[in-house]
Amino acid sequence: MSAPEYGRAFVRWREQAPEWHAYTHHPFVEGLRNGTLPRENFLHYLRQDYIFLINFARGWALAAAKADTLAEIQAAAATVQALAHDEMPLHVQICAREGIDAATLEATEEASANLAYTRYVLEGGYSGDFLDLLAGFAPCVLGYGEIGHRLRGSGGPYAEWIETYAGDGYQALCHNVGALIDGALVHRLGPDWAKLPRADQLAKRFATATRLEVGFWQMGMDGP
Amino acid sequence: MSAPEYGRAFVRWREQAPEWHAYTHHPFVEGLRNGTLPRENFLHYLRQDYIFLINFARGWALAAAKADTLAEIQAAAATVQALAHDEMPLHVQICAREGIDAATLEATEEASANLAYTRYVLEGGYSGDFLDLLAGFAPCVLGYGEIGHRLRGSGGPYAEWIETYAGDGYQALCHNVGALIDGALVHRLGPDWAKLPRADQLAKRFATATRLEVGFWQMGMDGP
Amino acid sequence: MSAPEYGRAFVRWREQAPEWHAYTHHPFVEGLRNGTLPRENFLHYLRQDYIFLINFARGWALAAAKADTLAEIQAAAATVQALAHDEMPLHVQICAREGIDAATLEATEEASANLAYTRYVLEGGYSGDFLDLLAGFAPCVLGYGEIGHRLRGSGGPYAEWIETYAGDGYQALCHNVGALIDGALVHRLGPDWAKLPRADQLAKRFATATRLEVGFWQMGMDGP
Amino acid sequence: MSAPEYGRAFVRWREQAPEWHAYTHHPFVEGLRNGTLPRENFLHYLRQDYIFLINFARGWALAAAKADTLAEIQAAAATVQALAHDEMPLHVQICAREGIDAATLEATEEASANLAYTRYVLEGGYSGDFLDLLAGFAPCVLGYGEIGHRLRGSGGPYAEWIETYAGDGYQALCHNVGALIDGALVHRLGPDWAKLPRADQLAKRFATATRLEVGFWQMGMDGP
Repeated sequence: MSAPEYGRAFVRWREQAPEWHAYTHHPFVEGLRNGTLPRENFLHYLRQDYIFLINFARGWALAAAKADTLAEIQAAAATVQALAHDEMPLHVQICAREGIDAATLEATEEASANLAYTRYVLEGGYSGDFLDLLAGFAPCVLGYGEIGHRLRGSGGPYAEWIETYAGDGYQALCHNVGALIDGALVHRLGPDWAKLPRADQLAKRFATATRLEVGFWQMGMDGP
Repeated sequence: MSAPEYGRAFVRWREQAPEWHAYTHHPFVEGLRNGTLPRENFLHYLRQDYIFLINFARGWALAAAKADTLAEIQAAAATVQALAHDEMPLHVQICAREGIDAATLEATEEASANLAYTRYVLEGGYSGDFLDLLAGFAPCVLGYGEIGHRLRGSGGPYAEWIETYAGDGYQALCHNVGALIDGALVHRLGPDWAKLPRADQLAKRFATATRLEVGFWQMGMDGP
Repeated sequence: MSAPEYGRAFVRWREQAPEWHAYTHHPFVEGLRNGTLPRENFLHYLRQDYIFLINFARGWALAAAKADTLAEIQAAAATVQALAHDEMPLHVQICAREGIDAATLEATEEASANLAYTRYVLEGGYSGDFLDLLAGFAPCVLGYGEIGHRLRGSGGPYAEWIETYAGDGYQALCHNVGALIDGALVHRLGPDWAKLPRADQLAKRFATATRLEVGFWQMGMDGP
Repeated sequence: MSAPEYGRAFVRWREQAPEWHAYTHHPFVEGLRNGTLPRENFLHYLRQDYIFLINFARGWALAAAKADTLAEIQAAAATVQALAHDEMPLHVQICAREGIDAATLEATEEASANLAYTRYVLEGGYSGDFLDLLAGFAPCVLGYGEIGHRLRGSGGPYAEWIETYAGDGYQALCHNVGALIDGALVHRLGPDWAKLPRADQLAKRFATATRLEVGFWQMGMDGP
């Protein structure tokens, strides 16, 4: 099964990120696929991911603040809403079923690998522009889409998690975000953006963010 | 009729803003009330206000990025949505009825008085924190609520504009924003925040933003 | 006498700014040249310019924070130093001679036209990137260079002000800033940056900043 | 020998940071003290620290942009200069003696533990205000001062590094930064700032930054 194509920039950046395979095929991911991942590792990951999503929502809000057009503002704002209304409730529900209540979730100490990724993306967005934010978000948003797409139908104890990202809703979001990125690049840099030094800077940001995603899975494997 | 109270901070800041009356009783406002404002001045104002609202939505998105709690993120994000779905469509509709289409709206050159206010608020938010943003937004959000409240039922050619801000929906939003401000102050500075130097800095920001709002009305009076 | 050329971007942006002549030949500037500018207008301008320089120094510091290379950091930091050690002491000295002490300077209320320019530049820099900051600074840094160059040797009551900007030190700074801009553009966008949509966005930022500089001179003419 | 006191906030924050001892007495530090740290680990650390210092200089530049008073701008700008002229040349020289040239230094891939700290501090500064930046800087600036103070005169292969931070120049800088922090707190929050919720937020930022400093030493111990 070939990897999904969420747009021109994504396909290109993915090729230039040395750790893309290490990220999308990390032992944590394989453990989700074949059901061998210990539950406590999954719950550790979920608790950290809850904090991650709060910072990710902040990042997309910053993107709305840094957008250039009303359409970009609306797209970024819609993603904030989707995070708050789709992904976060899933976490809260699963955690609740496992006996982790909202207060415990909120009180989780943020792991260094978690901090590293979200602050890298947010800081890159503050210091750079809208494109820097998108290049930092992309490994997460689109990588989870690619992983979900590959793991679709695996069943097992993590089927609910898998189907969240494999589902049509999330896959459509990936195509929309891919199109937002491609549009934002052309809007600022023209159709031949891939030849510019700026393209290398953005590819490097995507690659570094991918590296930090590997660290995030590893944190899950290492456990609490 | 006494002025509405949208919260402790608002009541305090309003008292400390020397130009509050000049803002809320500006000849432009009185012209809306008694119907003497020339239509072309109103349309000039509306066109500028459309650009204003885009920047205001960006500002509230920045507030979501700078929020400290999930509840603050959600409140700020909801305001972005309200701006995009309540205030902006009103502008587009009224302008359309008057023969100003969306493309013309988008192409409007931003007046200096317009730039001055929005960039002052946004920059203060970037350089400062969540509270600086709220103190910069407040004269607009809550001042329009106070003006709407006072002008309620005035009728005349500007009744639709007046009732937008006089209406229960907008008035409820003002109470919510007032509560958001009060809560954010206590969350960071404790219940006695009013005695701190930080309170004076925020009151000064509110007062300066109020002065720039006077400039915005004046731009409307001066016309295109 | 032809206008000085401080670099490729400057020459291009100047051509695309409709109000460049209105800025560099504003009645306030002509009044400096031929000595007819009333002293009180000059002092009003100087007091405002003092506040302006503080914000300008903040802007160049932000540029250092947003720089991409060590050389860019050093160049921006050196400009902060130059502002603090060359331009600001001149203001303090002249004001002191005229009976305006440092405390009075500090207590000056910032005029709206002053706020408008500096917040536009700073906010554009926060929301955008290093290039946005440079495009916002350029009308001031390089425009004063061009004005100083044209007014060199005019003599009269404002000779000291004129020679500050006409002098070799300031002219060298203009060439350095022009080279910094050209280098930063090529570093990010490649040698053909002028053909990209991004170039139009930056030219527009330069043009808007130029318009706000006209407002700054006008504030000087209108007086306190 | 008692730990040096660089100011009221520092003494307080240090007490509230659970990992302060783990940071200031990390095996890496003990290896510097007694000379048992392998040279290759030290050089790995130095290469990473070079990248760290670039980001640290950017952070202090951001502090200048976010400062409230001219004195704060000048203090922050002076620190940028000190970093660029004192600490960075030391790194370049030692590395050069060890056969690592400037180009190799520049090409070093930034370790995740390095990214984590600097982006945490910078992002906290962008999202928060001047105080957030100072609370994030403090474990580094003042912690190195405390370590240098304790290791003074240890001799051995790392004597040059030790004496840089033990020396009067660096110790004076620590007292100045401590005073800057104390002054900035009082300027914004009044003399009783320690009782405010904001004080807890800042103490937490200091503690998290301290935890990330432990990770930085550990990266040095783990080696390239």
